[in-house]
Formats: sequence, C-alpha cells, structure tokens
Amino acid sequence: MKAEDRYKQMAGEKAASFVQEGMIVGLGSGSTMYWMVRKLGEMVQKGLTIAGIPTSLQTEKWAKEFGVPLTSFAQNPDIDLAIDGADEIDPEFRLIKGGGGSLVREKVVAAAAKQFIIAADESKVVSVLGHFPLPVEIVPFGFEATALQLGKLGCDPQVRTKGNEKFVTDNGNFILDCSFSRIEDPVSLHHKIKMLTGVVETGLFLNMADVVIIGDQRGAQRMNMRRGQR
Amino acid sequence: MKAEDRYKQMAGEKAASFVQEGMIVGLGSGSTMYWMVRKLGEMVQKGLTIAGIPTSLQTEKWAKEFGVPLTSFAQNPDIDLAIDGADEIDPEFRLIKGGGGSLVREKVVAAAAKQFIIAADESKVVSVLGHFPLPVEIVPFGFEATALQLGKLGCDPQVRTKGNEKFVTDNGNFILDCSFSRIEDPVSLHHKIKMLTGVVETGLFLNMADVVIIGDQRGAQRMNMRRGQR
Repeated sequence: MKAEDRYKQMAGEKAASFVQEGMIVGLGSGSTMYWMVRKLGEMVQKGLTIAGIPTSLQTEKWAKEFGVPLTSFAQNPDIDLAIDGADEIDPEFRLIKGGGGSLVREKVVAAAAKQFIIAADESKVVSVLGHFPLPVEIVPFGFEATALQLGKLGCDPQVRTKGNEKFVTDNGNFILDCSFSRIEDPVSLHHKIKMLTGVVETGLFLNMADVVIIGDQRGAQRMNMRRGQR
Repeated sequence: MKAEDRYKQMAGEKAASFVQEGMIVGLGSGSTMYWMVRKLGEMVQKGLTIAGIPTSLQTEKWAKEFGVPLTSFAQNPDIDLAIDGADEIDPEFRLIKGGGGSLVREKVVAAAAKQFIIAADESKVVSVLGHFPLPVEIVPFGFEATALQLGKLGCDPQVRTKGNEKFVTDNGNFILDCSFSRIEDPVSLHHKIKMLTGVVETGLFLNMADVVIIGDQRGAQRMNMRRGQR
C-alpha cells in the first residue's frame, strides 16, 4: 500500500471512532471515506447501532457491502454527525470539496449535521486554497452563459468530462472546474459564485468543519485550527 | 374570451412588436407568452428572420406549432432580447416569477439577454411583492432540510405537487412555494434564500426587467418605472 493510501486509511478509521451509539451519521464520499465506512461496518458487526445517510451512489454501495444500515433525510432530518473527506484544507478549516462530483449532497448533509468531521491525508493541507481547481455545480440549461459569468471572476472554467461526455452529477447537473490558483478571500468568492444565476453550489465549504483529522507518517492527528492568521 | 385573457393577448402581442430582424430572442413561458409566440409566428410568416430560445418544453411546442425557428445557447450565447410574463410586478419592475415552474431557465435566459421585456395583464401589478407565493427551486436531495432552513426566513414552504406526486422542474428539481405575504426587502430576501445550501434559484427577478407592458381595458400600455418610492 502506498503511503498516501495508508494515511487515508488511518484518518478515515480515526474519524469513524467519533461515531457513537444511536447516531444518525452523514457518510461522505471519496477514497478516504472508503476506509471510514469499512471501519463503521466493523463497529456495527460488534454491536453498534447507527444509521447512515450516504452522499453518493458509490458510498451507498460501500455501506451496503460493509453492512452499515442506511436511512434517508425524510425519515431522519436530524443528523448527529457528518464525516467526509476534502480536496484542500486551509489552517482555518476552510475546504475545497467536489473533486468526486458529490459536492451538493455532501454540503446538504454537512449543513444539516450537528457536527462535521473531515478526514484526509496530509497532502490535502494547504496554506492558501485554490491550487486544486474549485468545482462549481451548475444547471445544464445555458451552461455556456453561466461559464461566461464565472470566467469574469478570474478563472477559466472547464466543463468536467467523463470519457467523451460531460460529467453529470447525481443531481443531473454539470460541474465547472475553476482554477483560481490562489483564493485570497474564500468567503467573498463563494458568495459571488453562489449568487450567479445557473449556479447550484460551490465546492467551498466555509465555517462548516468542526474537527479535522489528518493522516501522516505519525498516524492520525487532530489538526488545530488557526483563525485569521493570514 | 374573458377580459383577463384579452389583456394577456394584447400585452403579449405588443411585446412581440419589440422583436427586430435578425434577433436571437429568449421565449418566456406561461399563458401570456402563448400570444407572444403566436404573434412571432405570424411575423416570421411575413418574412421576419429570427431565432428563439425557449424557456420551457411548453413554449418549445408553441414555437414549433407557430413556425418560430429555434436555436440553442450553445449555438447562440448572445441573446438580443428576452420576453417573458410575470406573476407579480412592483412599481420598481421587480418581479415574482415561477408560477409555471420554469424560473431557472427563464432567469438564465433573462440574465444572458441584452434587453428583458415583461408582458402581463393588469392583475399582476402590485404595490408590494409577496401576495403570490414565492417559488424557490431546490435540489431534491435533502429537500426537507432545505425547507427547514427556508422556513426560518419567515414562511411556511410548501412542496409543489402535481396530482399525487411532487412537481419536478425541467431541470429535475423540486419547487417550494413560500408565502411571505409582504416582501418588504426583495433584494435582501433573494440574497438570503439563494445563499442557502440546496437552493438553485429564487423566483425574485430583481434589477432585470427593462420594459414592462401591461394589458388592461385601455389596451397594451408601457408601464413607467418608479424607483425607490416606498
């Protein structure tokens, strides 16, 4: 196993240890969440009673494979804890997410959860967000006009593709990947993008993460937040 | 024909007279737009060369029925003129739209158009917006949580239904109809709603309409804008 994968496993498993008896748990998406969901499956086998709300079809599959009971928002609107990965994490726990294309479901679940925990390997920690292209979910109708508006904010939006086709999210939308290089003011940028007609959601998760677990050579470490130091 | 329908016809036909040779025209939705599209069909038969971009499947059908040539955003991102109806119009030309469920496509087209003309019968003119329940388009995933957030802004959101099923927009989303009774500050309300996770777009069209045509017993009148008089 590559070091990065081992770090992901450690972080994902550590995050699972925050799950307590009786909780409704938002299950994030992506490779680190594979390990988290697998660990939850082991905990359920040992007697833990929980119910998960998956944020992607892939995570739903893993939950079924590892025996994690599932529920839905309609049945359980009160989510105790959401756990997810991230593509970038800054020292103020601000995130870029959506590399896997599930940002809307992930954000809806995170916003509804009492606590939101991020698990990632050390490569995701950055001093300034923006090296990872910011995913923005948009409605397909008139996406050319929406991309034009986004471009005016200082990036060159690329419609995400899968093979020879446009990538389509679980919500039936498109993703624009927007390289800003450095996002100096994530709050302002999120605001400007989200307000655009045609935009469903941005991959900037701000003021949402409560706990960040980072996997590195020392194991799985809880990261300390530094506020407003930049 | 009922007076209201005659007023709609007059307003719709008057709006069509703004269309000039060679224009790319956004074609709005709803009963008043039926008359507008029908009139455009007559103008095309008499030699006018234009191309329309429909904002709903119903409008697309009308355009085909009346012989209005159609195009798409991909082929023609520069829209010269968009014409549409409205559910409410205030003295500052601020609108509530979306009663027909096409608010996202209508707003994408209006936002991309150089000029935006509204045509409606006199019953749509109000002094303060909000008697007509504000339509808000939201992603289906976790709509219960989104409705909960919206309710905190001072309304009791109702999921729009069609028969025994939830109404689904052309974009595959749901609509929440939100009765605020009086919307004292439309700019602030639009802002708060659009920023919510799970919200795709609101039916508040602000600072968009350039011309408003109202059909009443006197014929089709161009309405004068009164700014900031409240």
